Amino acid sequence: MSEQGKPTVTVLGLGRMGTPIAAAFLSAGYSTTVWNRTPEKADALVAQGAIRAVTVAEAVAASPLVIVPLLDYNAVRQALEPATTALPGRVLVNLANGAPEQARELAAWAAGHGADYLDGAMMALPQTVATPEGFFLYSGSRKAFVTYRTELEVMAASHYFGVDPGLAEIHDLALLGTGYAALTGFLHAAAVLDAVGTTPAEFAPLAARWLNGIAQFLPELAREAGSGRYEGGVSTVDLNRVGVDNLIHISRANGIDTGVHEPLKALLDRRSADGHGKDSFSSVFELLRPQDAPQR
Amino acid sequence: MSEQGKPTVTVLGLGRMGTPIAAAFLSAGYSTTVWNRTPEKADALVAQGAIRAVTVAEAVAASPLVIVPLLDYNAVRQALEPATTALPGRVLVNLANGAPEQARELAAWAAGHGADYLDGAMMALPQTVATPEGFFLYSGSRKAFVTYRTELEVMAASHYFGVDPGLAEIHDLALLGTGYAALTGFLHAAAVLDAVGTTPAEFAPLAARWLNGIAQFLPELAREAGSGRYEGGVSTVDLNRVGVDNLIHISRANGIDTGVHEPLKALLDRRSADGHGKDSFSSVFELLRPQDAPQR
Ligand SMILES: NC(=O)c1ccc[n+]([C@@H]2O[C@H](COP(=O)([O-])OP(=O)(O)OC[C@H]3O[C@@H](n4cnc5c(N)ncnc54)[C@H](OP(=O)(O)O)[C@@H]3O)[C@@H](O)[C@H]2O)c1
Ligand SMILES: NC(=O)c1ccc[n+]([C@@H]2O[C@H](COP(=O)([O-])OP(=O)(O)OC[C@H]3O[C@@H](n4cnc5c(N)ncnc54)[C@H](OP(=O)(O)O)[C@@H]3O)[C@@H](O)[C@H]2O)c1
Repeated sequence: MSEQGKPTVTVLGLGRMGTPIAAAFLSAGYSTTVWNRTPEKADALVAQGAIRAVTVAEAVAASPLVIVPLLDYNAVRQALEPATTALPGRVLVNLANGAPEQARELAAWAAGHGADYLDGAMMALPQTVATPEGFFLYSGSRKAFVTYRTELEVMAASHYFGVDPGLAEIHDLALLGTGYAALTGFLHAAAVLDAVGTTPAEFAPLAARWLNGIAQFLPELAREAGSGRYEGGVSTVDLNRVGVDNLIHISRANGIDTGVHEPLKALLDRRSADGHGKDSFSSVFELLRPQDAPQR
Repeated sequence: MSEQGKPTVTVLGLGRMGTPIAAAFLSAGYSTTVWNRTPEKADALVAQGAIRAVTVAEAVAASPLVIVPLLDYNAVRQALEPATTALPGRVLVNLANGAPEQARELAAWAAGHGADYLDGAMMALPQTVATPEGFFLYSGSRKAFVTYRTELEVMAASHYFGVDPGLAEIHDLALLGTGYAALTGFLHAAAVLDAVGTTPAEFAPLAARWLNGIAQFLPELAREAGSGRYEGGVSTVDLNRVGVDNLIHISRANGIDTGVHEPLKALLDRRSADGHGKDSFSSVFELLRPQDAPQR
C-alpha cells in the first residue's frame, strides 16, 4: 500500500533502467505494481514489496500513473496493444528513447485510447537513477507533468519543455550531440597524445578536469549566443583560429586525421572572412542558426 | 625576504596571468621580484611587498627561479635578449602559449645562454590561478621540475610530461581540442533547440550537467582505447550510429547545418562497414590513430 496521500504507481518494463526505477518508488513508500515480459525479472522487486501483475492490462488498471521504461517505441506499442481497455483516465509516461515523430505518434495513439501522455528521456545510467546525477526530460501533457511532478522527482530531477510530445526527444538528442562532440574531441586528442607517448589513461583525468571547466563556461557562451552580442570578449574568433590552426598542425605532424576539427575551422574562417574576427568565439552560433532565422 | 628555506622568485610579465601569479608567490611567503614592460602594472604588487626590478637583467639576477608569463614567444625573446648575461645558472619557466617548435627553439636558446629551461602551459584563467580549478602542464628540464616543484605548485597543480620541451604545448593543444569539440557541439545543439523555442540560456545548465557526466565517463573510454579491446560494452558503434543519424535528422528538420557531426558519422559508418558494429563507441579511436601505428 502507498503511504498516505501517495498514488499507486505502475512500472512496465524491468530492464536495466526499469529495475532501479521500480526500486526507487518502493524506497519512497509508493505501492508499486510491476510487469515485465520475462516475469522472473520481477522476483527481486516482489521480494522488496512490489506487486506483480501477470498481464499488462492488470498492471495498467492498478495505478493512475503508468511509467514505461521499455526498450523502444515498438516495444511500448506491442506491450500496450492488448491492454487498451485499461487505458482511459491513465497517465502514460513513456521513457523509451526514440525520434520526436515517434513520441508524437504515440501521444496521438494514447489520446485515441483516452490516456494522457507524457514523453520522457532519461539522462541517466542505471546507477544514477534516483541520485543527484541523473535527470529526466519531459514533454507532452502539462497537466500530467504538474499532477505527478512529485512522483517523477522520485526517479530524477525533472525538466519539462512544452506540450509538443517530441520536445523531450529533441532535447535528448541535443544533449547527446553535445556529448558526442566532446567524446570525439577527446578520442582525437588521445590519438595525438598517444603518438607522443602519453596514454589515453594518463590523459583522461586531465581531459575530465578540463571538460568540467568548459562546462562552467557554457552559461557565458549561452548569454552571448542568446543575445547575439559578441563584442568585448577576450576569447575572440581570431585568437581561436590560431588555436585551431595549431591543433590541426600538430595533428598532421603526428599523422593524425584532422577531419574532426575541420568543421570548426571552417566556421571560424567564415566568421573572420565576414569581418567578425574580433567577435567572441561563441559567434559561430550565427552560422549554425538556420539561414531564415530572424535577424538581430 | 623569502621565509626560511624558500628560494627567491622572479616573475617577468604582469599581465592578466602574471599579476595573480606574482600575488600567489607573495601570499605563499616568497620574496618576489617583479618586472613588467609597462612598469605601472607592478605598483599594486609592490604595495603588497613585491620587489620592483627596473631592468630584466636585474630581475633575472635576483632569483634562481624565473617565471615568465608573457604574451608569446616573441615577447619572451625580446624581453630576455638584453639580459643574457644574467641567465647562466637560472631556471627559466616559460608560460607563454605557442607551438611545440617554439618551445624547442627557446629551450635551445636558453641552453646556449647557460639557463635550464622548463616550458609550461597554463590550464587556468586569471581567477583560477592558485585555486584547485587551475592546473599547469610542464615539459623540458626534469631537474628544474623536480627542484622547483614546490614553487610551481604555488601557481597550480603541476603535471610534467617529459624532457621534450614541446610536450607541454602539445598537451595544451590536446586539451584545447577536447574543449573546442565540446563547445562546438554545445553551440550546434543550442542552435537546434533555439529553432524549437528553448533559449541557449535555458539549455546551458542542462548541457553543463551532461558534460560533467561525460567527463566522468572518460576513464572508461580511455581504458578501452588504451587496450584496443572494445568488446562487451553496452554503448556500441551501431547503437550510436542510430543516435547520430537521429541527431543529423533532427538538425536537418530544423534547418540547422549538419556539418559539425559529419566527421563522427563517417567514423562510425566506417567502423560498422569494417565489421566492428558491435564494438564499443570508443573504438573509433582505431581510425583516428596514425595508419602506421603498431597493430594490436
Ligand atoms: N541503459 C541505460 O544506460 C540507458 C540510459 C538512458 C536511457 N536508456 C533508454 O531506456 C530504455 C530502456 O533501456 P534499458 O537499458 O533499460 O533496456 P534493457 O535493459 O534492454 O531492457 C529492455 C526492457 O524492454 C523490454 N522489452 C523489449 N522488447 C519488448 C517487447 N517487444 N515487448 C515487451 N517488452 C519488451 C525488456 O523485457 P525482457 O526483460 O522481457 O527482455 C526489458 O524490460 C531504452 O529506450 C534506452 O535507450 C537506457
Ligand atoms: N588570460 C588567460 O585567461 C590565459 C589563460 C591561459 C593561458 N594564457 C596565456 O598566458 C600568456 C599571457 O596571457 P595574459 O592573458 O596574461 O596576457 P596579457 O594580459 O595580454 O599580458 C601580456 C603580458 O606580456 C607583456 N608583453 C607583451 N609583449 C611584450 C614585449 N614585446 N616585450 C615585453 N613584454 C611584453 C605585457 O606587457 P605590457 O603590460 O607592457 O603590455 C604583459 O605583461 C599568453 O601566452 C596566453 O595565451 C592566458
